[in-house]
Amino acid sequence: MKNRFMTLLVLHLILVAGVAGSSSTVASDPLPSWNAGPAKRAIFEFVVQVSSEGSPTFVPPSQRIAVFDGDGTLWCEAPVPFQAAFVIDEIKRRAVREPALAVDPMVQAALDGEIGKLLDGKHHNGLLRILALTHTGLTTDEFDRCVNRWADSASHPRFKRPYLELTYQPMQELLGYLRSHQFECFIVSSGEADFTRVWVERIFGIPPQNVVGSIGQVKYALREGKPVLIKTPDHLLVDDEEGKPVGIHQFIGRRPIACFGNSDGDQAMLEYTTIGNPLNSFGLIVHHTDAEREYAYDESTPASGKLTTALEMASTRGWTVVDIKRDWSEVWSNHESLQAAEESRRLFGRWLAEDIGRRGVLDRAQSTLEIGPDGSVSGSTSVNRYRGQAIIDGNAISFGPLIATRRAGPPAMMDQESRFTEAFSQVTGFRMGENGLLYLTDGNGNDILRFSKIAD
Amino acid sequence: MKNRFMTLLVLHLILVAGVAGSSSTVASDPLPSWNAGPAKRAIFEFVVQVSSEGSPTFVPPSQRIAVFDGDGTLWCEAPVPFQAAFVIDEIKRRAVREPALAVDPMVQAALDGEIGKLLDGKHHNGLLRILALTHTGLTTDEFDRCVNRWADSASHPRFKRPYLELTYQPMQELLGYLRSHQFECFIVSSGEADFTRVWVERIFGIPPQNVVGSIGQVKYALREGKPVLIKTPDHLLVDDEEGKPVGIHQFIGRRPIACFGNSDGDQAMLEYTTIGNPLNSFGLIVHHTDAEREYAYDESTPASGKLTTALEMASTRGWTVVDIKRDWSEVWSNHESLQAAEESRRLFGRWLAEDIGRRGVLDRAQSTLEIGPDGSVSGSTSVNRYRGQAIIDGNAISFGPLIATRRAGPPAMMDQESRFTEAFSQVTGFRMGENGLLYLTDGNGNDILRFSKIAD
Repeated sequence: MKNRFMTLLVLHLILVAGVAGSSSTVASDPLPSWNAGPAKRAIFEFVVQVSSEGSPTFVPPSQRIAVFDGDGTLWCEAPVPFQAAFVIDEIKRRAVREPALAVDPMVQAALDGEIGKLLDGKHHNGLLRILALTHTGLTTDEFDRCVNRWADSASHPRFKRPYLELTYQPMQELLGYLRSHQFECFIVSSGEADFTRVWVERIFGIPPQNVVGSIGQVKYALREGKPVLIKTPDHLLVDDEEGKPVGIHQFIGRRPIACFGNSDGDQAMLEYTTIGNPLNSFGLIVHHTDAEREYAYDESTPASGKLTTALEMASTRGWTVVDIKRDWSEVWSNHESLQAAEESRRLFGRWLAEDIGRRGVLDRAQSTLEIGPDGSVSGSTSVNRYRGQAIIDGNAISFGPLIATRRAGPPAMMDQESRFTEAFSQVTGFRMGENGLLYLTDGNGNDILRFSKIAD
Repeated sequence: MKNRFMTLLVLHLILVAGVAGSSSTVASDPLPSWNAGPAKRAIFEFVVQVSSEGSPTFVPPSQRIAVFDGDGTLWCEAPVPFQAAFVIDEIKRRAVREPALAVDPMVQAALDGEIGKLLDGKHHNGLLRILALTHTGLTTDEFDRCVNRWADSASHPRFKRPYLELTYQPMQELLGYLRSHQFECFIVSSGEADFTRVWVERIFGIPPQNVVGSIGQVKYALREGKPVLIKTPDHLLVDDEEGKPVGIHQFIGRRPIACFGNSDGDQAMLEYTTIGNPLNSFGLIVHHTDAEREYAYDESTPASGKLTTALEMASTRGWTVVDIKRDWSEVWSNHESLQAAEESRRLFGRWLAEDIGRRGVLDRAQSTLEIGPDGSVSGSTSVNRYRGQAIIDGNAISFGPLIATRRAGPPAMMDQESRFTEAFSQVTGFRMGENGLLYLTDGNGNDILRFSKIAD
């Protein structure tokens, strides 16, 4: 028991340290990829101010809305935004089968790689044209499959890696840090919501209902008696510049207290979040200054988000400016760390005990464990139901006391129940095995519980 | 301790019973205003099927999206929907100050009470006209104030009660039952989101980001340097009929597994939810059959939602039809029960201990308690931080074991800490006192903890 309590205590102090803010850099840094400096300090200060009990600037959780731009803020937008790369690859693929498409001058530009032409105009009208050509008539399910096929096969021209690996590790950490302080995080992207929603939940754990984006009109129909939504060429909302606060109002309906962007296209939502907000608020601009590790651009950029007026305004508005070269010790959520994130996400779900303390389990007695993204645990001992709280940190996991019902069952089952519940008290870590097995381990790294995944 | 354990056990069994479904009608009926019958049984069966571990039709919580129509499904829509009543009252109020308005034939119709004229046309164009006249040019904040003023002053012509009291108790219970099984509930209403969001969070606990509605266009501007959103006459989305599945896709981005409506305007979203859905799904239609307690209407109704084709289709589609007269023992979330709901909501938030076991507290030692809507508890003993889980049921509350840090402090503070934490173990109930005080009581109804609210 002592062992377990110490683990709980240590892990809990880590958790508490998160709240204590500055001290969290001592106990366990929730933002390890951020170098010490004004940007990192400003983030800690804001989160502590709004989330600390008794703080005069405390903000209740229901009001802790944070909005993140996507391209250039959470993931790479150079040389062209993900969605531009997608539609250009898509039109090339389609043009092979449908040569007639090439008649369209914008399709021709895409085939000739004249990206500049496509990006002309305030809202990249050439791109919208190709978007309409490639998307129109697809059902939303067919479109999702297109995007997934592209994401699995396409790779970035410079970094030669799948696009979805080119997300920013420091921003991944920031999302996690805000969530651990009961912020609800939304992506407010000029990219199409239909495109972004397909993969952000997997990469950032942000569910579709928390993605605000440009909206292409869809049409409802029954096809062979089955309801489908068919994409049309019309656009309902272009979620950029003034469209961002408008989209935030229409989709979220609540003014954010934190806003993260990287271009003039985010200026209006930065203003909307921070100017005259009765609640304590925070604005941050990611400034791309690192040509070596990523890209350096602001005024003069053909494809990516221009950053001029928003940058000039930052100091007067009190917006924090992140200098990637100076402030980020690591840029990319590289494959390994993405896998680690996926790993801990794989922990969430429903599990069936296959072995307890190397003594197996009864065939007729199913002992189960469900772990939620918030660390809540529940399940059945096979006789009784239980629930409680787990603290998860990297590959360490520790279970708090469990509340359980007290039904009686056959001796053999009651024996398994006591071995099962007792085992949790010794757990300090976990690892994923082959065939999706989950092992819960003790302080010496010995397996004390083995689970198989219960299919969703 | 025994006392406390028994309470925990009983309350927990109630909780478990909720999961056990049918047996829950024995232990504690989560739907007390629903008469036993096919409708009530169908609801229990569906929820148990999708939320029970090991069930072949289990649906993971992230996919448990439930959508509710508003007018006529969650609240009264006769003789006219709330928003119609609102805009008609508004235009009357405005016409007094701006006689020029009366030139408009639709305004004249409103002043003459010729509601029929306003409701003509597929989308009640006359009403949209008045909506535009009354809303255009207002900032979203000014509009919110208008709606609140109306909600506080207006009363229903037949029931002579504030409109917001005319919500359906059985549907309130259904929302709570679904939430307790990790459903995320959305309102998908043909009413304007800007109108509905102002009050649904207070009445149903549904936050603005979970309200999908008709969308009036707004314009972003800086007024005297402050960002504002100004309502325009244009409409972006009319969230009715085919507009509902479209709105669900655009705003939620995930197909629901449960849909609740009352008119042909909900047919498309009922189809979208239930036809060919790979997940176990559920559709329900509220049929207004009770002229005595509420209204009876379906085919022939001037103002309210027509119910013809959706009703014909119900049996072939397997949609559950609620016959209000037969299935609801109580119709209205009357003032008392609304207050009860508000009461338990008042429990949520941050509290400062003012007295512990009738022995007061130290001036310099602040012991705090925060209770979340999910029953999570956390706070500071003044020396250490703690967290845990509470089970709340009506005015009964019981605290599970608390995990705490183990910092040492001055003897007097450590004494208060132990009195504070020990006190929780005896709590079985709560009541709200004057001046917003919170009393936690023991099994004999004695106050053992007194708290004052910490202002948000």
